Amino acid sequence: MALTRFSVAPLWQQTQALAAVAAGRAPPDVVITGARMLSTYSERIANDKEIWLVGGRIAAIHPAGTYKKAPAPKAVYDARGGIIAPGLVDPHIHIESSMVTACAYAEAALLNGTTTIFCDSHEIGNVMDVAGVEAMLEDARLAPLSIFLTVPSTVPATSPELETAGGDLTPEKIGALFDKWPEAMALGEKMDFVPVAMGDPRSHAIIAESLKRNRPVSGHIYGRDFVAPYAASGVTDTHEAIDRDISNDFIDAGIWVFLRGGNPATPWNSIVEAIKPITEQGASHKRFAVCTDDRDADDLLTFGLDWVVREAIRLGMKPEQAWAMGSLHGATRFGLGDDIGGLGGGRRADLVLLGDDMKPVSTWYGGELVVDQRKVMPVLEQTLNQRYRYPEAAYNTVHLPKGLKLTPELPTAPVTANAIGIELPGIVLPHRKVAIEPANDWASILDKHNLSFVTVVERHGKSKGGIAHGLLQDFGLKNGAVGSSVGHDSHNILLAGTNEADMQLALDTIEAAKGGIVVVQDGKVTAFVGLPVAGLISDKRVHEVAAENRALKTAWEAAGCTIPYMGFNLIPLSVIPEIRITDKGLVKVPEMTLQPLYD
Amino acid sequence: MALTRFSVAPLWQQTQALAAVAAGRAPPDVVITGARMLSTYSERIANDKEIWLVGGRIAAIHPAGTYKKAPAPKAVYDARGGIIAPGLVDPHIHIESSMVTACAYAEAALLNGTTTIFCDSHEIGNVMDVAGVEAMLEDARLAPLSIFLTVPSTVPATSPELETAGGDLTPEKIGALFDKWPEAMALGEKMDFVPVAMGDPRSHAIIAESLKRNRPVSGHIYGRDFVAPYAASGVTDTHEAIDRDISNDFIDAGIWVFLRGGNPATPWNSIVEAIKPITEQGASHKRFAVCTDDRDADDLLTFGLDWVVREAIRLGMKPEQAWAMGSLHGATRFGLGDDIGGLGGGRRADLVLLGDDMKPVSTWYGGELVVDQRKVMPVLEQTLNQRYRYPEAAYNTVHLPKGLKLTPELPTAPVTANAIGIELPGIVLPHRKVAIEPANDWASILDKHNLSFVTVVERHGKSKGGIAHGLLQDFGLKNGAVGSSVGHDSHNILLAGTNEADMQLALDTIEAAKGGIVVVQDGKVTAFVGLPVAGLISDKRVHEVAAENRALKTAWEAAGCTIPYMGFNLIPLSVIPEIRITDKGLVKVPEMTLQPLYD
Repeated sequence: MALTRFSVAPLWQQTQALAAVAAGRAPPDVVITGARMLSTYSERIANDKEIWLVGGRIAAIHPAGTYKKAPAPKAVYDARGGIIAPGLVDPHIHIESSMVTACAYAEAALLNGTTTIFCDSHEIGNVMDVAGVEAMLEDARLAPLSIFLTVPSTVPATSPELETAGGDLTPEKIGALFDKWPEAMALGEKMDFVPVAMGDPRSHAIIAESLKRNRPVSGHIYGRDFVAPYAASGVTDTHEAIDRDISNDFIDAGIWVFLRGGNPATPWNSIVEAIKPITEQGASHKRFAVCTDDRDADDLLTFGLDWVVREAIRLGMKPEQAWAMGSLHGATRFGLGDDIGGLGGGRRADLVLLGDDMKPVSTWYGGELVVDQRKVMPVLEQTLNQRYRYPEAAYNTVHLPKGLKLTPELPTAPVTANAIGIELPGIVLPHRKVAIEPANDWASILDKHNLSFVTVVERHGKSKGGIAHGLLQDFGLKNGAVGSSVGHDSHNILLAGTNEADMQLALDTIEAAKGGIVVVQDGKVTAFVGLPVAGLISDKRVHEVAAENRALKTAWEAAGCTIPYMGFNLIPLSVIPEIRITDKGLVKVPEMTLQPLYD
Repeated sequence: MALTRFSVAPLWQQTQALAAVAAGRAPPDVVITGARMLSTYSERIANDKEIWLVGGRIAAIHPAGTYKKAPAPKAVYDARGGIIAPGLVDPHIHIESSMVTACAYAEAALLNGTTTIFCDSHEIGNVMDVAGVEAMLEDARLAPLSIFLTVPSTVPATSPELETAGGDLTPEKIGALFDKWPEAMALGEKMDFVPVAMGDPRSHAIIAESLKRNRPVSGHIYGRDFVAPYAASGVTDTHEAIDRDISNDFIDAGIWVFLRGGNPATPWNSIVEAIKPITEQGASHKRFAVCTDDRDADDLLTFGLDWVVREAIRLGMKPEQAWAMGSLHGATRFGLGDDIGGLGGGRRADLVLLGDDMKPVSTWYGGELVVDQRKVMPVLEQTLNQRYRYPEAAYNTVHLPKGLKLTPELPTAPVTANAIGIELPGIVLPHRKVAIEPANDWASILDKHNLSFVTVVERHGKSKGGIAHGLLQDFGLKNGAVGSSVGHDSHNILLAGTNEADMQLALDTIEAAKGGIVVVQDGKVTAFVGLPVAGLISDKRVHEVAAENRALKTAWEAAGCTIPYMGFNLIPLSVIPEIRITDKGLVKVPEMTLQPLYD
């Protein structure tokens, strides 16, 4: 039988059996002996202990060797002096960012000692509406991992005037998701913080759907001035504490802070600054947790939540405190502190064996040894081979018109173009005014101003031939094209290139595979990650997708692109300044107005 | 309109209004300016701040004086540099111990800066079953205080063979209470820890009723050996950490520890030892709270939860940490950390103004100033004058047969009596074998062996003339009688005395008033507290009952009694060793067997 969250029966069905084992009247299933025990409750490590498991739960912790005087366990595991800690709990992630299914994500999580995640399936919601969110929940229920939902709250990110999305999650649909799916534990990151602060009725109606069910609201916010109105609106967590000052503001406004770690080469590694209220300013860490937020499949294996915990230690916290921020605190924030996040009696036996370097060596999920000495065990392998398959509709979300012209009109008179500037780290995109003189072809113009084309093609089949053209400056692409069916948040097809033919090949490649990210050079595809599910995720195992990610990054850099592909995919995200492009055209932010390519 | 918990609308109805005030678009109702702000989140005190309130909730905290540049508030309160902190949250109390109604209890609580309590209405449940619990909930809903229920879990304390109780709270009745009353937040203290550890079906069925509704289970336990099976049974808090070692055991087993403070003259002041894992052994305090548990009306005013917080400070904790243990931590434990326990945006405006000595000066409940400069304000006075009146059935719970003989047979031959020894602190009662020679009357026997009579009369009308006789040794009563309709947990009438006439007067006095505690000396009542509601509580204001309490204590001591009346009331509690007396007779504990008076 496949291993899932439901393999462990609820505590209320097991209290008698657990008490019998704890009191020594009945045998444990498993004893892990010769271990140090990390208490996320008292934040101490105790020596020479053992932990007794039965029915996938923790029966008791006793001094090492106690099991020899009690009814014989079915199995004994010698921890050889390693540290046993609770499995990590990631309070904020997007599975789609890893471009894998929930079942496939589980493998990487378990290798990193993570046994519970709270995912916001915001991207698939933007493509497939409720059907996408529910398909991912079905996927999650079959995964060998505890996956809870924070219900996507801001779909679409803006409005139908500014972009064409596949989803429109109204307050009614969000309320229905809460009522249908008990794993919907909170409202996901309410990204539209300006409308929230301004009292927008739809935004507040969505918040109300969560609060009236006694479910908390997660946030997403930039700017210290917005903290107070955002807190007053009922938001009680954030993963967007990007510096010390706003981190202080959040915590004292009653907002849990999820310190986000990430590949230090990206701008998302905000833990370094946001941890300073604790390490420099005497704030209690009890309402801080750590999270990953977004990881591509490649980074997921290297920069997992365990890595973020070790970053917190490197930045000055005690290992016991940091591990508590990675487990119990997230569980407590979402009301699950009595079931996960610590080695307490009756809790799920989601455990990690750690070396002194705090690196996970072995992982038990619901009492099952799923990773041993960093190797996937047969019980996990078997479950991973029976992964959920998404419904056919999910494999059919790229609907393109034929005969599109992918490049803008060549100017026949002097014009001023509204170009999108590309600057590292690639989040804010400056508005550049570029004076273009007429020429015989685009090549000389692009070359002279360091420009490339950027084109967005509507792919939800909602508009007939919806397309918008723009220009990128300093994107660095010397020839060929790149393209992606991941283009936040509406996930229309995003192309950049220096010529129509290579851009067409990029588009055709994506269309044929029903989704993907591609690099084309001189009429040839040099890298491709197929994302057939909703145009966002692969249906392969995580190591395969990670290998494809690495090949993509190599080809991407070789093509000269100045920002990584994850930054490229944000170009249509019309809630970040200063100028973006959607299928409706160029969008000025924060004015939220459409702008022609040529003035 | 009376001030109750429901005077403040739920947050989901108010987010737009709160955001408008926080952002400075709309006026606050109240600004409390010139204050230091105690953050229970970061455990720091910030200087020169002000707090904006609207609709009974917190809109924002800003630098002092900010309000002058925003829409004018309806009222400004100058805190003159005092500390504003969240109202205290008491995670475990029994209102009946204070011998007042919930409405009357509120007055003392607010004077002490307590704005939320979690009560276990276990005593009235033992007398009146579900009807008593529900009457107290109706009372609680009309109180100017946030009163939540932890559902009485162990009624009766033992079995009908060993005592006659008025209540029998089956798993079905407990489940129905959870479903009917949303303020039922947890299962109350599961006192029968031996049956729980042994897997008793009824005990575990009751636990299951709470866990299956995702409600936690509170505990009550003595003995380190019981910690593991108790935790494995799903218990996740306790207020019975009576020493350092068991406090350590609890916290690492995943059990929240509520440090119980109490009048230092009583044995219930366990915080002094139980706090040592924090102050001496490096344990995090994040899963510790403080509580009061039981207080008579007199002690309630002097030794409130604010006093317990100050005890934690005296014992070595920082004021910010101690106040967090008195507010946010209890709220978090019961899943209310987003609504109370801190000065976060959107939270209820339950606030206290403190002096540097951490003594409450003024209290706001739901944004209303209810206590100012230690004086009850008119809005509170008005609510207290409209107190809930219990139904007539609650005023009619003492049903006594006539013509009872209140003293045992005078021995006509040498006998060995099984006497109940009285020793301070009056919790464990030793079994004394007393060799009695025949005499002409009881007086010389009592005098020779330092004995007094003890008699329990069944008062629930369930048995016809149910009565049991026993002897107390070293109780110290020289003449007269004492009596009480509070006799844990079944609350039959408990009498002690040196002669039948005074005992009869004590019984008659209690019967006439339908409940009370009385001291009789030489044929005269020297003190009496009337407890007409369920024979447990008065319907007067808390100061009146406190004055009656003090007079009772004076008369009680004057009569020579060696243990206080609260200890006396525990004599029938047949779950504490070694020998007790119920209406069924003498009970040996832990053997749980009935014992004759004479061998």
